[in-house]
Amino acid sequence: MQVMAIDRNSLRGKLFIIIFGANTRKGRLFDVFLLYFILTSILIVCLESVPKIRNNYEPEFFYLESFFTIVFTIEYFLRIYSHPKPLKYLLSFYGIIDLFSILPFYLTYFMPSGHYLITIRILRLLRVFRILKLSSFVHHAQVLKSALAASLQKITVFMLFIVALVLIIGTIMYVVEGEENGFTSIPQSIYWAIVTITTVGYGDLTPQTSLGQIISSVVMIMGYAIIAVPTGIVTVEMSRSLPVPKTADLIECLSC
Amino acid sequence: MQVMAIDRNSLRGKLFIIIFGANTRKGRLFDVFLLYFILTSILIVCLESVPKIRNNYEPEFFYLESFFTIVFTIEYFLRIYSHPKPLKYLLSFYGIIDLFSILPFYLTYFMPSGHYLITIRILRLLRVFRILKLSSFVHHAQVLKSALAASLQKITVFMLFIVALVLIIGTIMYVVEGEENGFTSIPQSIYWAIVTITTVGYGDLTPQTSLGQIISSVVMIMGYAIIAVPTGIVTVEMSRSLPVPKTADLIECLSC
Amino acid sequence: MQVMAIDRNSLRGKLFIIIFGANTRKGRLFDVFLLYFILTSILIVCLESVPKIRNNYEPEFFYLESFFTIVFTIEYFLRIYSHPKPLKYLLSFYGIIDLFSILPFYLTYFMPSGHYLITIRILRLLRVFRILKLSSFVHHAQVLKSALAASLQKITVFMLFIVALVLIIGTIMYVVEGEENGFTSIPQSIYWAIVTITTVGYGDLTPQTSLGQIISSVVMIMGYAIIAVPTGIVTVEMSRSLPVPKTADLIECLSC
Amino acid sequence: MQVMAIDRNSLRGKLFIIIFGANTRKGRLFDVFLLYFILTSILIVCLESVPKIRNNYEPEFFYLESFFTIVFTIEYFLRIYSHPKPLKYLLSFYGIIDLFSILPFYLTYFMPSGHYLITIRILRLLRVFRILKLSSFVHHAQVLKSALAASLQKITVFMLFIVALVLIIGTIMYVVEGEENGFTSIPQSIYWAIVTITTVGYGDLTPQTSLGQIISSVVMIMGYAIIAVPTGIVTVEMSRSLPVPKTADLIECLSC
Repeated sequence: MQVMAIDRNSLRGKLFIIIFGANTRKGRLFDVFLLYFILTSILIVCLESVPKIRNNYEPEFFYLESFFTIVFTIEYFLRIYSHPKPLKYLLSFYGIIDLFSILPFYLTYFMPSGHYLITIRILRLLRVFRILKLSSFVHHAQVLKSALAASLQKITVFMLFIVALVLIIGTIMYVVEGEENGFTSIPQSIYWAIVTITTVGYGDLTPQTSLGQIISSVVMIMGYAIIAVPTGIVTVEMSRSLPVPKTADLIECLSC
Repeated sequence: MQVMAIDRNSLRGKLFIIIFGANTRKGRLFDVFLLYFILTSILIVCLESVPKIRNNYEPEFFYLESFFTIVFTIEYFLRIYSHPKPLKYLLSFYGIIDLFSILPFYLTYFMPSGHYLITIRILRLLRVFRILKLSSFVHHAQVLKSALAASLQKITVFMLFIVALVLIIGTIMYVVEGEENGFTSIPQSIYWAIVTITTVGYGDLTPQTSLGQIISSVVMIMGYAIIAVPTGIVTVEMSRSLPVPKTADLIECLSC
Repeated sequence: MQVMAIDRNSLRGKLFIIIFGANTRKGRLFDVFLLYFILTSILIVCLESVPKIRNNYEPEFFYLESFFTIVFTIEYFLRIYSHPKPLKYLLSFYGIIDLFSILPFYLTYFMPSGHYLITIRILRLLRVFRILKLSSFVHHAQVLKSALAASLQKITVFMLFIVALVLIIGTIMYVVEGEENGFTSIPQSIYWAIVTITTVGYGDLTPQTSLGQIISSVVMIMGYAIIAVPTGIVTVEMSRSLPVPKTADLIECLSC
Repeated sequence: MQVMAIDRNSLRGKLFIIIFGANTRKGRLFDVFLLYFILTSILIVCLESVPKIRNNYEPEFFYLESFFTIVFTIEYFLRIYSHPKPLKYLLSFYGIIDLFSILPFYLTYFMPSGHYLITIRILRLLRVFRILKLSSFVHHAQVLKSALAASLQKITVFMLFIVALVLIIGTIMYVVEGEENGFTSIPQSIYWAIVTITTVGYGDLTPQTSLGQIISSVVMIMGYAIIAVPTGIVTVEMSRSLPVPKTADLIECLSC
């Protein structure tokens, strides 16, 4: 991260180093606090959603949630204030996540159950990991990310194929099973086809007619073979993105 | 695609270049229009199948569907007219799909719910992708296709094995569980065996007796190991069909 | 198959060549007939098990089944008669399958629904495949078989681990959920653990308590990682059992 | 295992060699007995948990369980007595498992159904395997273990990602579906998200609203691609931890 023209003695400069950096003792402390604040506030939201607990401690939850959201709001404005280029921060990936982490609370008035969406603030942990330089984790995440990025296009082609497949299967099952067996519409049948081909198999919709069961059997066996494809793609890309020590040894051996 | 003896100035020649080609501005425009027409018409069919929506807008849906089918029918006849060898087109893969994309509508009279099958026109998108030369996608699709083609025979052997296995397991479970526990026939039990071994597990049929549960457990654990086989096949073929940059580097190194 | 001291002119010798071999026109014809007879007789047993069909055609099914079983019985005795070493045939893999393919029918008197088990005669197709030298299939089956054989020990170790795991998980869930939530015994809970860890997930038994759901979540995520292990084993063995053309090219290049 | 200063003629020394070793005839016999005792006692606990069996043989089960636990308790104290460094044994992995294998029985008074937890004694088999030097098994277990250990960090990163994902998906579904459709709290919705993304799919909770079904479909297709990741990780690590015969051949060829 290039740090642009920061006056290290001004208040803004000092704040920037604490809030955005993790090289100083204060900066690291700030990030560790942030980590615990984020985790605690998510735990509170999860507990609040349990009816039995909410009914007994409704005011407490409201106060706790208000407290954390106010803290995060202050942090958000401090980040805007201390950043050399506030607009750049506002539009950055982390800036948008920071905003979405506090917004739902203030919109509760318009959308009562929406405030639970502040669990999105778990994504803020990404920044904490990055800053605290949990380097081993970051390294492995990097390897995974590059392998997945290399697989992405192939997986997209594969996904388009799956979408076309479930559309056709869904339509056929809608025609075969009909509304009286729970396949009430083509979108509903497509939902069934996805549940089946991914081997999730809830069982909320199941074929009732003999023909439907035969078609389902074919779909399931197909899905069995199809699930091999993304696995194959990722495995191959992953084995390519990793260093190959043995071949390297071989080269060394050849040069001697 | 070799283009045979087309008089570029005749109406047929001009139409052929627009409809079948994508090198001219008009040809590309035609394909883009086609893409949106196909997607829109599929969306309409999906929406029409939802009972609540259909009941409110029945005539509108009929008009829209008629409109799209008439457009595709005109396009179909223009394709036949403009192609240098109409019969070859009619019997080609895309020619058959084009026919099946309009046929169900005209057969509604004989088979009322059959007209939903026009969602098969999603396969027409294959042609659009090919013509618009979405080359990156086409390349990746090619790699996947060749890997799957190389795996096909092995997967077929594997599938024959699975078919024999589910037949035997199905029969055993039919004898063990019997009709009073929902395993009402051997085909029904085979359906259960497929649902189980592919790990879909709807739960519409489950073993009730202790012996049945023990056999099921064995089947599930077997299925667990068996699912590894197609994945292994595809992964190995995929890693063989991909270029191996490191070995290439090695060869270069050796030649220096 | 070494053919031992067969008098090609005697009846036994001629029968042996027709029944066990596939080099003569008659021998091949015999095997093709056998193929259709096996498939037809299995189809009949499957159809017979469907209550609606059975009730309407009960005598017909009995006659058909009797006919096929008598044919297979005659074939069985001809095999014994014509084989140079009858005892060796009787105790061979195929000899035992041939016996089990006819036995259930004759035991119907003692175990009424047992006669369905004659579907085991599908295993006889293995011999037909082998004899008809469907060589491509046999080759691929061979590759799969050798890869699986190489994986067998590792997969056995893995399976023992899974057995210990489901035993412990099953006991914990039995204690946590208790009989009132459907986990009526440890074997029942082990059955649940297997259904869960293999990702089959029927849903006939599901955790009802919060603690049970938390433990289940951990089990499922573990199962998610665990399913990777057999796949990894098979893939690695499969990639080792296949010829590696690129390395071969490399060696050639080196020798020049 | 280094054996420290054991007086082979004292009682403690003799006991140590029999109980902890497997080089002498007596030591091996001891371990084989232990193997059968462990398996039998686990079988008894499993059978006891079945209500129908328990009700008929309650006293017999109590006596059998007491017998086995007393035997294992005596063995436990003999291990402490004969080990040169008793504290080291007590705190070792196997020492703790040995304790937990007998403890639940004695705590029955405080936690009636807890005594079933003695099935944890199946873990004691690990020692028996190790001591009996079932070397082929131990070797394969070693290969698996080292491949899994190498994958562990990558899988941990992946798991943290899954945890964040199911939290966000769970919250969204809680808001979308609401308590009236069974998504009664965020933890409950997270449980649903895990059931779905691991493709277990019990079907005890299923999306009822159209929007919920659309989100579920996306989650399932994502889960389909995501399941490829741990498989890829394990496969790659496994192929790296295995000897590569072909490259070795290549090196030999080069040196000639």
